[in-house]
Amino acid sequence: MRRAIALAARGLGGTSPNPVVGCVVLDPSGEVAGEGFHAYAGGPHAEVAALREAGGRARGGTAYVTLEPCAHTGRTGPCATALLEAGVARVVVAVPDPNPVAAGGAEVLRRHGVRVDEGVLTAEAEEGNAAWLTFVRARRPYVTWKFAATMDGRSAASDGTSQWITSPEARADVHRLRAESDAVVAGIGTVLADDPRLTVRPPVRPAGPAADPGAAADGPPRAAPVLRVVADPGARTPAGARVLDGEAPTLIAVAEDAAVPAHLSQVVRIPRVQGGIDLHALLAELHGRQIVSVLVEGGPTLAGAFLREGLVDRVVGYLAPALLGAGAAALGPAGVSTITEIHRLEFASVTPVGPDLRVVLRPKAPAHQSSLPASSLVTDPLVTDPQVVQSPKES
Amino acid sequence: MRRAIALAARGLGGTSPNPVVGCVVLDPSGEVAGEGFHAYAGGPHAEVAALREAGGRARGGTAYVTLEPCAHTGRTGPCATALLEAGVARVVVAVPDPNPVAAGGAEVLRRHGVRVDEGVLTAEAEEGNAAWLTFVRARRPYVTWKFAATMDGRSAASDGTSQWITSPEARADVHRLRAESDAVVAGIGTVLADDPRLTVRPPVRPAGPAADPGAAADGPPRAAPVLRVVADPGARTPAGARVLDGEAPTLIAVAEDAAVPAHLSQVVRIPRVQGGIDLHALLAELHGRQIVSVLVEGGPTLAGAFLREGLVDRVVGYLAPALLGAGAAALGPAGVSTITEIHRLEFASVTPVGPDLRVVLRPKAPAHQSSLPASSLVTDPLVTDPQVVQSPKES
Repeated sequence: MRRAIALAARGLGGTSPNPVVGCVVLDPSGEVAGEGFHAYAGGPHAEVAALREAGGRARGGTAYVTLEPCAHTGRTGPCATALLEAGVARVVVAVPDPNPVAAGGAEVLRRHGVRVDEGVLTAEAEEGNAAWLTFVRARRPYVTWKFAATMDGRSAASDGTSQWITSPEARADVHRLRAESDAVVAGIGTVLADDPRLTVRPPVRPAGPAADPGAAADGPPRAAPVLRVVADPGARTPAGARVLDGEAPTLIAVAEDAAVPAHLSQVVRIPRVQGGIDLHALLAELHGRQIVSVLVEGGPTLAGAFLREGLVDRVVGYLAPALLGAGAAALGPAGVSTITEIHRLEFASVTPVGPDLRVVLRPKAPAHQSSLPASSLVTDPLVTDPQVVQSPKES
Repeated sequence: MRRAIALAARGLGGTSPNPVVGCVVLDPSGEVAGEGFHAYAGGPHAEVAALREAGGRARGGTAYVTLEPCAHTGRTGPCATALLEAGVARVVVAVPDPNPVAAGGAEVLRRHGVRVDEGVLTAEAEEGNAAWLTFVRARRPYVTWKFAATMDGRSAASDGTSQWITSPEARADVHRLRAESDAVVAGIGTVLADDPRLTVRPPVRPAGPAADPGAAADGPPRAAPVLRVVADPGARTPAGARVLDGEAPTLIAVAEDAAVPAHLSQVVRIPRVQGGIDLHALLAELHGRQIVSVLVEGGPTLAGAFLREGLVDRVVGYLAPALLGAGAAALGPAGVSTITEIHRLEFASVTPVGPDLRVVLRPKAPAHQSSLPASSLVTDPLVTDPQVVQSPKES
């Protein structure tokens, strides 16, 4: 199953609005006969790819699959049927399908005499599908807030200069993050101040049967380019802004009462709340457009608003080994006025990226795990340290 | 030699104003015959301890020692003589002694026919003795700035509350840091706002022959309690301040023109510069008092001043997996007005401490290595990441 989860991850960024899925088929003697993963929406499902590779060896064998095989016919036929036709004797499932349209595969298989075991490595497989599970269970896109800052939490010097706090390696990593997202969101403040492109470079390869999904160095294949979204209550995005350059689609989210100038064509009207547009409504709108994951890139005001509304599922921080002591903070007001209201998260990973450090943090109760008992949460070996001396006192 | 460096580290916090030194003696067949380290000032030197353990097996053998054996008689006899008397045939030295009073041991040994090899694992051994080497070479104490903050660089919520941002494990680790320092420095702002004790808890064990220097869980043995220093230009430390509680000695560093109230007895006058007292003069004063290492604990203003003056040798940050979005910054103005003036450091280590992260950063050209070529700098495997995709473009 661990291999199937690793296979699933190879589809990240390409499968939206589908989940990532990996499958390993063993022959009756327990030898690996076929492997597969879902690479792009509309392409073969993981089970079908693995069964194709396994051929006749699948008969009487076992299929390990990270998500319950689908029972419905979408752009491809139901996987439960494919497993039955291949004569698989046993199917091991990590995560039951929460999608009411596609669920029921396990039941179909059992009815036809296939042994189905569920709940194997569930937490790990859920982690790999966090974005899609959030999309299905919370009915909104999975939200990642990305920031780059010094060790003292600043993203620009006091005169506003900020190029470059982090390394080329860290900035390349950000492009990888964007390529794994369906949309990138920035606030109008950032658009006016920095005029970012918000595109993925190098350009993503078009998804399709010809793409080699294993060549991750070029970025994952995508069915559609990454949508650029500007949270712009007052419809102030200027005509010459780079986000309007046509390199990728752009959606300007304006307040419902905004006067929209003629140069803004792709506009969506969102209810106004204090301080801007209603982010819950914005995410609902994006959910309706089949946006599974969004990357919030800036600035501090927008990030603070997402955090205040409890809408951040993951924080990815690039920390430069540098200090400024003054200048713009990476995070603006986030609804915290006293220490008991602090936003508590936990480290999911800490990785060197060039000379910088990438830290990934997640809320203690992620939205994608909302239907699971607390005991099934992934525990991270990073956050325990037996070496540290405990002290009952404090200063 | 690596074993000798590890042995040396067991003396950290106890040997001041002496260096930490480790020694491993091999018998003529290459078997380990004796090990030793310098545990406290006035106690046996590493070589003497290792020779004592080796006994007659040292004759014709090899001694690995992290620092050039001393040639002078202080509280203990010269180690070069001890090595000669034991009949050691070869001495391998990591770091030459930069202290003009004690140097010359290698020359003495060579004159008596002992083969002396120098420069083995020099950078690693220097790293272990960074504080003492800074003390001797830069003629000032080694300065560590410690901070605790959220991922967005804040050390308090907007209403001033800050207990607790970091975990009990992180706070215990701070006590270990204090116990390894000769002095802890805070600014008057922190004393007035937080009234800290600045003592080491649990109390350090008295140093001496009875102490078991291997029992690091109780903190290292110390010849003297950690000195508390308050940078207090206007002599405003109140009579009831906890730093005056008598639990440990306290030095109030006031400006030379300050009107000192009667309740402040242990006062030193330091020249005034813009924004406070002259930190170079303060460190010179502490150097004269045999203070080898100081820990700057707060607040942001004092830390910024040390950084601006180029007087920070090490930064130890405790990062909580939490976000505030508002409140006091961990670091105040540090002389940076534009991005090109940013203080660039590099990660020396990144370690989980309870749920928090401890990051240690050092300047790229540390003061303790000022006499070394750049090629001898310690390279840290942490700060390279071959996995990251390089991108020639940026956004």
